[in-house]
Amino acid sequence: MKQFPNLIPDCTVLVVGMGLIGGAYAKALSEKGYRVLGITRSREVIDEALREGTIADGDTAVNPALIAEANIIIFGLYPAVLLDWIDQNGHLITPGTVVTDVTGVKGCVVERVQEMLPMGVEFISAHPMAGKELIGSNTLDVYCAATPDMFRGANYLVVPTDKNTPEAIRLCEQLGRLLGFGRVTRLTVEEHDRTIAYLSQLTHAIAVSLMCCAGEGSDTASDADIARLSLLTGDSFRDLTRIAKINDTMWSELFLSNREALLEQMDLFSERFTAMRDALAEGDSDKMREMMRLSTTRRNYFDKNSR
Amino acid sequence: MKQFPNLIPDCTVLVVGMGLIGGAYAKALSEKGYRVLGITRSREVIDEALREGTIADGDTAVNPALIAEANIIIFGLYPAVLLDWIDQNGHLITPGTVVTDVTGVKGCVVERVQEMLPMGVEFISAHPMAGKELIGSNTLDVYCAATPDMFRGANYLVVPTDKNTPEAIRLCEQLGRLLGFGRVTRLTVEEHDRTIAYLSQLTHAIAVSLMCCAGEGSDTASDADIARLSLLTGDSFRDLTRIAKINDTMWSELFLSNREALLEQMDLFSERFTAMRDALAEGDSDKMREMMRLSTTRRNYFDKNSR
Repeated sequence: MKQFPNLIPDCTVLVVGMGLIGGAYAKALSEKGYRVLGITRSREVIDEALREGTIADGDTAVNPALIAEANIIIFGLYPAVLLDWIDQNGHLITPGTVVTDVTGVKGCVVERVQEMLPMGVEFISAHPMAGKELIGSNTLDVYCAATPDMFRGANYLVVPTDKNTPEAIRLCEQLGRLLGFGRVTRLTVEEHDRTIAYLSQLTHAIAVSLMCCAGEGSDTASDADIARLSLLTGDSFRDLTRIAKINDTMWSELFLSNREALLEQMDLFSERFTAMRDALAEGDSDKMREMMRLSTTRRNYFDKNSR
Repeated sequence: MKQFPNLIPDCTVLVVGMGLIGGAYAKALSEKGYRVLGITRSREVIDEALREGTIADGDTAVNPALIAEANIIIFGLYPAVLLDWIDQNGHLITPGTVVTDVTGVKGCVVERVQEMLPMGVEFISAHPMAGKELIGSNTLDVYCAATPDMFRGANYLVVPTDKNTPEAIRLCEQLGRLLGFGRVTRLTVEEHDRTIAYLSQLTHAIAVSLMCCAGEGSDTASDADIARLSLLTGDSFRDLTRIAKINDTMWSELFLSNREALLEQMDLFSERFTAMRDALAEGDSDKMREMMRLSTTRRNYFDKNSR
């Protein structure tokens, strides 16, 4: 049985799924001197990662030798793909290995993965809050867009359950700091999913809905209408809709994977938005100003805690 | 009777209301060699503007000599204050003067101002889409925050009615270019108010509502809850709520001044947001993805037309 890993430079890390996040993990860790292995579907990505020296070895297939060699395995996969992978190949992971992930939802992932893994393999879940929009890029371009400094200043959320050992939790937190994240925070699965529903998924749902109601709310606003609007835009609209360019495959899966928490946040938002609407309809300036002042006071915290 | 002004360096410009926008106009125009006069309530602002040479003359009172001397008068006032000012002092403006404004709503302003002004005085309305959040700053600090290059790359909307002459419209457009705006566009009053309701006011209503529903939608979320949330935030939430720090006096007035158009846009947004919510509740991935793809296609126009 392998020794429980420590994040010291003689430990071997396997990255499964070398997309944007997995690719950035691999590049950052190899730059720090770790021995990094890779498993990902694209031959081109494996070849490029070998050529540039990011990985010492890699395969497009689920290679048991690479899996056995790793002290730490990082899964850079979408939630449903991760669950499938563990279901089919989890038995190949050898005792003493610590496994972590990068998925943006946890309720549907963490306990199931922990249940499926063999005895002696510990899964400690994490969520690196970072990314770039790369819609339509091919697999190799996505890998190449990953940079080892991508996480500078960003948040790294560690999401343990009562199945986790203090050692694995510490290891995962150490990994976050090593990758250059600005802040490492521990959350329960429920806190994580509620927080992410509010801070990330709700904001994306809002931006998409705002973009879709352009041109008087019609789906059939012409391209010319939208082009004209875009000429009149100020910074506030531009900032608010930056995330309206969205990977529909990934985000629809994330929304559905966190359905209950997101529905709750969407309903809470609707309630406030309707309160503002009704205050306006009734000419209730005091109510509108009260909301604006609350909003201003709260937003100040976000300035103070900006990077 | 004064000659109809041309924007040549011997023309005299009076700025009434030297806040952020009025101040920036005064600074930009004096830098370009125009003779600039100022009327604003704060003695400190007048003194500072005289000291630094932004204005050649100024007063805290409504000084008829300054008004008579001006070929162009620019009102940097809130909509209701502008209407009051014109109502009480409009008769002091001498024939041959061109008057413009900077108000963010037009339906409640343009025709009323045009009706109130004396014969021979032409009001051509404009909306400089620029600003900074300076909540809580005193009058002098706001004036000092105004910079002559504040409009670089921003949009300048000229909003004529059938009462306007081609000469005044051209003069106003010339003024926008002279101030350094990146794009000068002509809109009708109705187009302007609908466009602004969507691009600007709706986005502010959304950002405020989103900030207000933090901490599970309760007004009573503690400061500690909000501070904790702010530590977990990614860029998307931060960008989306930048405008949630809002001047409640100005924005409640802007909302109420454009009530019908804004209510229409708020309802159109709610309809789309509810469609997204229902698709999620029903597990209708196709519908969610369809909205995300429409949103992505449309948002591309805003990238192409970015500054």
